[in-house]
Amino acid sequence: MFTQQTQVRVRYADTDQMGYVYYGNYAAYYEIARVEALRQIGISYKDLEAAGIMMPVLENHSRYLQPAEFDDLLTIKVLVRQMPTVRIQFDYEIYNPAGQLINTGQTLLAFIDKTTRRPCRPPKHITALFQPYFQAEP
Amino acid sequence: MFTQQTQVRVRYADTDQMGYVYYGNYAAYYEIARVEALRQIGISYKDLEAAGIMMPVLENHSRYLQPAEFDDLLTIKVLVRQMPTVRIQFDYEIYNPAGQLINTGQTLLAFIDKTTRRPCRPPKHITALFQPYFQAEP
Amino acid sequence: MFTQQTQVRVRYADTDQMGYVYYGNYAAYYEIARVEALRQIGISYKDLEAAGIMMPVLENHSRYLQPAEFDDLLTIKVLVRQMPTVRIQFDYEIYNPAGQLINTGQTLLAFIDKTTRRPCRPPKHITALFQPYFQAEP
Amino acid sequence: MFTQQTQVRVRYADTDQMGYVYYGNYAAYYEIARVEALRQIGISYKDLEAAGIMMPVLENHSRYLQPAEFDDLLTIKVLVRQMPTVRIQFDYEIYNPAGQLINTGQTLLAFIDKTTRRPCRPPKHITALFQPYFQAEP
Repeated sequence: MFTQQTQVRVRYADTDQMGYVYYGNYAAYYEIARVEALRQIGISYKDLEAAGIMMPVLENHSRYLQPAEFDDLLTIKVLVRQMPTVRIQFDYEIYNPAGQLINTGQTLLAFIDKTTRRPCRPPKHITALFQPYFQAEP
Repeated sequence: MFTQQTQVRVRYADTDQMGYVYYGNYAAYYEIARVEALRQIGISYKDLEAAGIMMPVLENHSRYLQPAEFDDLLTIKVLVRQMPTVRIQFDYEIYNPAGQLINTGQTLLAFIDKTTRRPCRPPKHITALFQPYFQAEP
Repeated sequence: MFTQQTQVRVRYADTDQMGYVYYGNYAAYYEIARVEALRQIGISYKDLEAAGIMMPVLENHSRYLQPAEFDDLLTIKVLVRQMPTVRIQFDYEIYNPAGQLINTGQTLLAFIDKTTRRPCRPPKHITALFQPYFQAEP
Repeated sequence: MFTQQTQVRVRYADTDQMGYVYYGNYAAYYEIARVEALRQIGISYKDLEAAGIMMPVLENHSRYLQPAEFDDLLTIKVLVRQMPTVRIQFDYEIYNPAGQLINTGQTLLAFIDKTTRRPCRPPKHITALFQPYFQAEP
């Protein structure tokens, strides 16, 4: 299992007239968290796309437990529970500055060949970077 | 059951560098569709908030089947399958101009008293507007 | 001079916690207005990009006179005052449902060759479509 | 004169199909920069609103010199050149990771009483925090 934490400051732009973060903006928070998670594993998503692999989202699921407010420094915990194949799933837990769990999410992404726009397996050097986190226990 | 259709034109702002609509922007499309659905039933969401009732989102689920492109005139079909109680669920189906189903979604919202910020039942005149769509069959 | 009107309904997503449209979202309203203006002249911006011409924004200027509110059906008046060369300028006036002028804007865009990423003149068939609106008076 | 620097990482959500940051998203970058600038002076914009003062934007001006790309860690330099009165002007310079100036901006904001929605002078303790940066030279 791979897990990592990222922080994001709520922008005024992220709020709506209810005075909280608009529900559609959590998708961007998830994106930040998984880009940083990949970076820590040693994968630049920018380089991955430049190398011809895109990772479009197939599914997205969110549960909104408590609202997030402007200027909150949120902590996003990312989890990858299973070794990626042609798909990769990220789970998220978002905590507010008081340490309360305010949002949980799950995103399923595909590896897609940029030229053929067909699903593909991630390249071996990418798989190798994930490997250490998913070793079978003896 | 209540069902309605709304159209939305994809903005350049909605796309990302993959050349398709960013996955986080479908939440705004769902919002447009349910605001228009409520309007057709006879409910102005704006007036509802002014009258002290907010409808925050509790859950959001999306499946991305095909990408949407800039300038596409999308058709969003909204369904309310059950008579609302303290909660209301909207289902969505998004079709591209070729008539292909490209996205399905589901949003669960609560009725919240704006002053107490506690869940509440919708006012009777609101419930009455939904009633005709959920008559028990003889 | 070319002038046209477009309407846009304010989304909940467009508002911020001040209860009005976030100042950064007017840029998307301007974009909608100029895409529709081009369409009326006979130019699909989507086709233009597909044909290898991009129109990035060089300058954007906005004056916020009155706030726009959720659910407002705004009217955006677009004006092209001068025959486009390697650049094209769009002026905007946004009116609220009460007919009040609430925002004025100005956007300067370039014609760019998608392959070389260098400025270019618009193709002749594009120029020809603008011509009727900028005839010299006798 | 007050000046400060903030950094912002370009999100995938910020890009459009041109492959660069959408022109409308710079407004949010400016917002981040001025919220952080105020924080460094000792002003929490969140607290300011809670204390009954809002700062809506009256004017926004942007010049786009070079595009910003996904994952770029941008540096935003903020400048307040004049002691704020009922209005405050922020100037911005955005630099890409190569140190190139890619965007310049200017935003004029008003101090508004949240209750009356009328322009007001900033409270004395706010003015006092700005004072040291705008001392008259002998």
